[in-house]
Amino acid sequence: MTGGAETMPARRICVIITARPSYSRIRTALEAMRDHPGIDLRIVLAASALLDRYGRVADVVREDGFDVAAEVYSVLEGDDVAQSVRGVGIALMELASVLSRLDPHAVVTIADRYETIANAIAASYMNVPLIHVQGGEFTGSIDNKVRHAVTKLADVHFVASELARRRVIGMGEDPALVVNTGCPSVDLAAEVARRPELDFDPFARYTGAGPAFDLSGGYVVVLQHPVTTEHTEALDQVNRTLEAIAGLGKPVFWFWPNVDTGSDGASKALRMFREREPGRPFHFFKNMLPDDFLRLIVNSACLIGNSSVGIREGAFLGAPVVNIGTRQHGRERGPNVVDAPYEAEAIRTAALRQIRHGRYPPCHIYGDGTAGRRIADLAATVDLPTDKKDFLAAPGFRTSRVA
Amino acid sequence: MTGGAETMPARRICVIITARPSYSRIRTALEAMRDHPGIDLRIVLAASALLDRYGRVADVVREDGFDVAAEVYSVLEGDDVAQSVRGVGIALMELASVLSRLDPHAVVTIADRYETIANAIAASYMNVPLIHVQGGEFTGSIDNKVRHAVTKLADVHFVASELARRRVIGMGEDPALVVNTGCPSVDLAAEVARRPELDFDPFARYTGAGPAFDLSGGYVVVLQHPVTTEHTEALDQVNRTLEAIAGLGKPVFWFWPNVDTGSDGASKALRMFREREPGRPFHFFKNMLPDDFLRLIVNSACLIGNSSVGIREGAFLGAPVVNIGTRQHGRERGPNVVDAPYEAEAIRTAALRQIRHGRYPPCHIYGDGTAGRRIADLAATVDLPTDKKDFLAAPGFRTSRVA
Amino acid sequence: MTGGAETMPARRICVIITARPSYSRIRTALEAMRDHPGIDLRIVLAASALLDRYGRVADVVREDGFDVAAEVYSVLEGDDVAQSVRGVGIALMELASVLSRLDPHAVVTIADRYETIANAIAASYMNVPLIHVQGGEFTGSIDNKVRHAVTKLADVHFVASELARRRVIGMGEDPALVVNTGCPSVDLAAEVARRPELDFDPFARYTGAGPAFDLSGGYVVVLQHPVTTEHTEALDQVNRTLEAIAGLGKPVFWFWPNVDTGSDGASKALRMFREREPGRPFHFFKNMLPDDFLRLIVNSACLIGNSSVGIREGAFLGAPVVNIGTRQHGRERGPNVVDAPYEAEAIRTAALRQIRHGRYPPCHIYGDGTAGRRIADLAATVDLPTDKKDFLAAPGFRTSRVA
Amino acid sequence: MTGGAETMPARRICVIITARPSYSRIRTALEAMRDHPGIDLRIVLAASALLDRYGRVADVVREDGFDVAAEVYSVLEGDDVAQSVRGVGIALMELASVLSRLDPHAVVTIADRYETIANAIAASYMNVPLIHVQGGEFTGSIDNKVRHAVTKLADVHFVASELARRRVIGMGEDPALVVNTGCPSVDLAAEVARRPELDFDPFARYTGAGPAFDLSGGYVVVLQHPVTTEHTEALDQVNRTLEAIAGLGKPVFWFWPNVDTGSDGASKALRMFREREPGRPFHFFKNMLPDDFLRLIVNSACLIGNSSVGIREGAFLGAPVVNIGTRQHGRERGPNVVDAPYEAEAIRTAALRQIRHGRYPPCHIYGDGTAGRRIADLAATVDLPTDKKDFLAAPGFRTSRVA
Repeated sequence: MTGGAETMPARRICVIITARPSYSRIRTALEAMRDHPGIDLRIVLAASALLDRYGRVADVVREDGFDVAAEVYSVLEGDDVAQSVRGVGIALMELASVLSRLDPHAVVTIADRYETIANAIAASYMNVPLIHVQGGEFTGSIDNKVRHAVTKLADVHFVASELARRRVIGMGEDPALVVNTGCPSVDLAAEVARRPELDFDPFARYTGAGPAFDLSGGYVVVLQHPVTTEHTEALDQVNRTLEAIAGLGKPVFWFWPNVDTGSDGASKALRMFREREPGRPFHFFKNMLPDDFLRLIVNSACLIGNSSVGIREGAFLGAPVVNIGTRQHGRERGPNVVDAPYEAEAIRTAALRQIRHGRYPPCHIYGDGTAGRRIADLAATVDLPTDKKDFLAAPGFRTSRVA
Repeated sequence: MTGGAETMPARRICVIITARPSYSRIRTALEAMRDHPGIDLRIVLAASALLDRYGRVADVVREDGFDVAAEVYSVLEGDDVAQSVRGVGIALMELASVLSRLDPHAVVTIADRYETIANAIAASYMNVPLIHVQGGEFTGSIDNKVRHAVTKLADVHFVASELARRRVIGMGEDPALVVNTGCPSVDLAAEVARRPELDFDPFARYTGAGPAFDLSGGYVVVLQHPVTTEHTEALDQVNRTLEAIAGLGKPVFWFWPNVDTGSDGASKALRMFREREPGRPFHFFKNMLPDDFLRLIVNSACLIGNSSVGIREGAFLGAPVVNIGTRQHGRERGPNVVDAPYEAEAIRTAALRQIRHGRYPPCHIYGDGTAGRRIADLAATVDLPTDKKDFLAAPGFRTSRVA
Repeated sequence: MTGGAETMPARRICVIITARPSYSRIRTALEAMRDHPGIDLRIVLAASALLDRYGRVADVVREDGFDVAAEVYSVLEGDDVAQSVRGVGIALMELASVLSRLDPHAVVTIADRYETIANAIAASYMNVPLIHVQGGEFTGSIDNKVRHAVTKLADVHFVASELARRRVIGMGEDPALVVNTGCPSVDLAAEVARRPELDFDPFARYTGAGPAFDLSGGYVVVLQHPVTTEHTEALDQVNRTLEAIAGLGKPVFWFWPNVDTGSDGASKALRMFREREPGRPFHFFKNMLPDDFLRLIVNSACLIGNSSVGIREGAFLGAPVVNIGTRQHGRERGPNVVDAPYEAEAIRTAALRQIRHGRYPPCHIYGDGTAGRRIADLAATVDLPTDKKDFLAAPGFRTSRVA
Repeated sequence: MTGGAETMPARRICVIITARPSYSRIRTALEAMRDHPGIDLRIVLAASALLDRYGRVADVVREDGFDVAAEVYSVLEGDDVAQSVRGVGIALMELASVLSRLDPHAVVTIADRYETIANAIAASYMNVPLIHVQGGEFTGSIDNKVRHAVTKLADVHFVASELARRRVIGMGEDPALVVNTGCPSVDLAAEVARRPELDFDPFARYTGAGPAFDLSGGYVVVLQHPVTTEHTEALDQVNRTLEAIAGLGKPVFWFWPNVDTGSDGASKALRMFREREPGRPFHFFKNMLPDDFLRLIVNSACLIGNSSVGIREGAFLGAPVVNIGTRQHGRERGPNVVDAPYEAEAIRTAALRQIRHGRYPPCHIYGDGTAGRRIADLAATVDLPTDKKDFLAAPGFRTSRVA
């Protein structure tokens, strides 16, 4: 296809990012698209991706060397229950003009946040082929509804696991347009796995709080998000984990939870613990660069908590993980994960088993580290549907009888 | 249920109607809900249901004795491709406030028009249980996307046929919450079937155009909508039907197509025919009251065209139908339907076969005439989910291994 | 100013046009701005300027050789009383993004239609200097409120007459920033006046309806818009004019009124007249190119009706005008205008007086034909205020007493 | 007016409050309207009045015993320059529906915040008479534009001073519809003036920071808001005031400035002062109940700073005030105010003069303490215009010459 460049101009691909986690997850794909000769990348930032109190991913995106083609402010202040509905409404009005102006060959939307349905509606109603990344997963409540509704509005699906692929096809999507690319967030894990040594001093590089300790005897890492809006319950859940790991005989790196619903209770439990037992080898961090964080995990005796990192990146890295509670319910697991309920004894038993076991062989259920590149290649070349979407899921309807 | 009224107050059910065909389809259910002691009905009119040029269904609704709880203007003027996106955005902003104010126990949305996704998002994002009527069907293009996306946002599904039920369950919905109620539009057909005599003079009651003729030897009815935006093609398709029925030896009632894309071509073909062959026993109507229209059909030798009436109401009535082309592609058919392509010879052959056959026995694939009542009963009593929606379609994910 | 081009780059001037009459009025200024080296013109079309049923001025603008930088769809369908409020809301949301993107040095808004307040708010709230063209005039009702509110939001004022200048200054605007440029619509009149001969055959170029007649003995032109929503009153008003001009002994060119409120009654009166007196030398037109129309007027014995053309362009052309009723109430008049109430006898007397008088000398109260050029020059060079707007109208407030 | 209550039903008056200061200012009028037999009060809360970070005036309003008829969320998150434009747009869309539903006889809007133009447009475009409270004042920049534009959209004006009345009339408003009611915020001052004794211990009731001191020898109160976005300048301005009052020989109550632009610099200056001179009799407060605050002022030797309280309430109370800088530039002053620039020496001289002078006789330029009642009475009875608004300001236009 020597002369192809002339006859096949680059596709204008518009990726709409509505939040920091979506950016983190898609970043390697963005890099691959930016560098792909067949793609003319247009990044649109929307919703909480533009807001200071969510970490202003807009600045990070620009620092990472991407251009931003448009900004869509759509988050209304105020705690009215209808605010998310209004936010989607505002986003639609803005995206209508943004897509008219950018006139892309395809729109990419990521995962399942409530605002992403605006991306899906804008593209599909304007007859712009819609690529959905990370459909077919399973989590709680409204996210499920949004994710699956976006799946039904989308034309092409880049999913992160085989199970997700089967689910999307099960919903009636054309198998030819559902590709398991793996999750781009695993790409960074793959890079870390190629050079996994802990090449920095966590205490020196990230101040944090609590005593420094010797890492040579092994350590555990804890990352536990609140899963409840109930203050006492959130506090209680953290206390059970604290109780469990007290008996492991390993020093601990504990990452503060995100500022989010329920995080008050969690924070209080941690503050009370620190006052109660100030001498214990627990060191607390708020943030860490992604690759440093993964190196810390891959060198730990065990990762304990309920983060998706243990499930996704952990699978590739073979990191021993104790996954607590129901937060990751419905997510496919590699052999590296042992589940435990919110009970100190169960958590401790699971953690001891994982520490004894040590690192697992790599498992590629969430990808082999090439997701970003594969997504870019496919976005540049996949046969984009131009019109009607057939329904393939259900028992076939009767063929028309023609006289 | 003496003391029941106290312990179980009526459910506030909000039905959002966005277009005239949706109202026609749901009317018997609205009547049953209005009269149901367990339901406090709130009707919201939105989008084209409020507009003169679409027949101002708002007036009809009020004349039919319903109260209107809120009006949502959301259709922007202008032929920009992004207009439907903006319309959904405006509807969302309005519905956010309307649902906050009405505070319903459930929202009902109907079928698959593009605006209905606003109803589905508003309800589901505000944690109001969403009932979707007429999911699981299959038609062309964007309607499919919208309909199935609404299915994934909905909690309860009242579908119109067994095949639709299987499709909705196939997409992962809980079978306990997917009920085949039949289509409420069939309820009127059932009423007509109980007293099917042609009890009025069509020429006298509806003026129309063209010569009157004797009905005693049988007649055919034609109702053919344009399915193309291409003027010449629309004209051509009507000409083929005209050619086909010229050889049937029966007088013809022809209903003008809706004012819609492609209707110019169709109208021109009819005008040319009338000028060319003014003496032929063709009589043209624009509108007819629904029950008169069904009585005309049930007494005809054959209904020819591409309307869903032949498929749905026709099934119940046992009316012989020749269905032309792909417009009803994907809709389940009863034995009363013979399909034909846009070819004069094929249409004529099919029509002759149907005329010979005569009326079919009733077929209940689209309901037994009790859909409205069943929908009302279910809306009043069905167990409305209050939180998270599980995904049941795909091969079950691995059960969590608990240590 | 050889090197000036380098030190003083062209100003990006954004002109927002919301309706066909605004475009007609500003066109010569747009041409002058487009051709001005100190101006980088950006035209934004909004509201009814984008709609077919208002004559799709968007197409005319492009045919006239202008680029369109953005389109703002903001007109909601439906006859709800709140629709204009929603329309302004939608326009604001769109203009926020449009002005962010275009980043103009100044925004120009024209006259007083309800949508123009969105232009004024968007510019002033975003600290973009706002130039208002045609402030200080006086008409009925809501237009007055809008026009004067826009004046108070504007920084610079290009008005069309001395009286308008005094009114704007009277409202407290800085006299240095209020310039009487004349009305750009008069520029075309000036061109016509330089070569006023009737150089075309109206019957041949514009078909129209009614008999052709000999123009050599003089003719009158009638252009009368309905000023009422009341059918009978509108019909009656036209009838009085018909009665009046029947006795003038001159053939008549009558222009149909715009399709607008009250035009049904007016049209009916004209249709009845034509049926009643088919042989009379009345010829009816719907449209005419602006310069042809002005040539027809300048060569007429008298222009009768209530159009602003008689007041503005008529002043420059010296065309004898009988202005009927209150529609132009509050507009400054040149000597060429005689007012008459809606009474046949008064209209006839005034018309006879004007026919006897013949053409008036040119009067420049609405400009000398250089408004477009002057507006462009000023837009390129006027000192654009960058911050706070002082209030100069009222009796000065006490100077601060400083200790 | 014995039987009047029957023939004249209560007017539905809708007051739209968009911010905490507007509520404080209008509160006594709201109370009087709530208790007025001729008024059916409907309060709408909008914009920042609904937001936590602005003090959630919604809660205060309800605690004060008012019902809230509707809430309008309209503030978008994010620091884009166009955000205020979008906010007005959203407010308009919401207010269109709110006013349709409430169907008031008149709308009241207050002062000059940017969001209030939405209230004015919604009312005037829907032909609901608009009452503007506190027009005709003069402050900086965009507030001026908004205030005067609202004046031009309004039908009736309740202004707070004679100068304001003259300014509004000067802009062309009908003098019969411009009433100087005084400012309702002065009503509370009038109440305090009837019982002015300092009847509480400021140190005990409001903790604050800094040493307690003896009040018997007099004290000064300082309330100085930052007027600049420039950190160093804000710091500097506070330092000059600190320097000035160091030499007065009186203890000081200092109120922290609002969290606002420039308040960082101001706060820093205060913190540095406290560290530098910890023993000085300076006591710092953040908040105080309005009547306690006014009692503290009326009993002080001098109020120093740049708050409008010194100008408005201070006039009525006769409190000696040193007003620093330009923040109150353009506001009418009573004899109790001495102005000073940002210079320590000038401030000190002015303060000493005021301390020597002592309390002034009451001055009623901002009202006599009956504004709330007068506003309610007028709102219930004023002749509300129903249609077109005439322009009275400018030199009269020529009377039409009728033939």
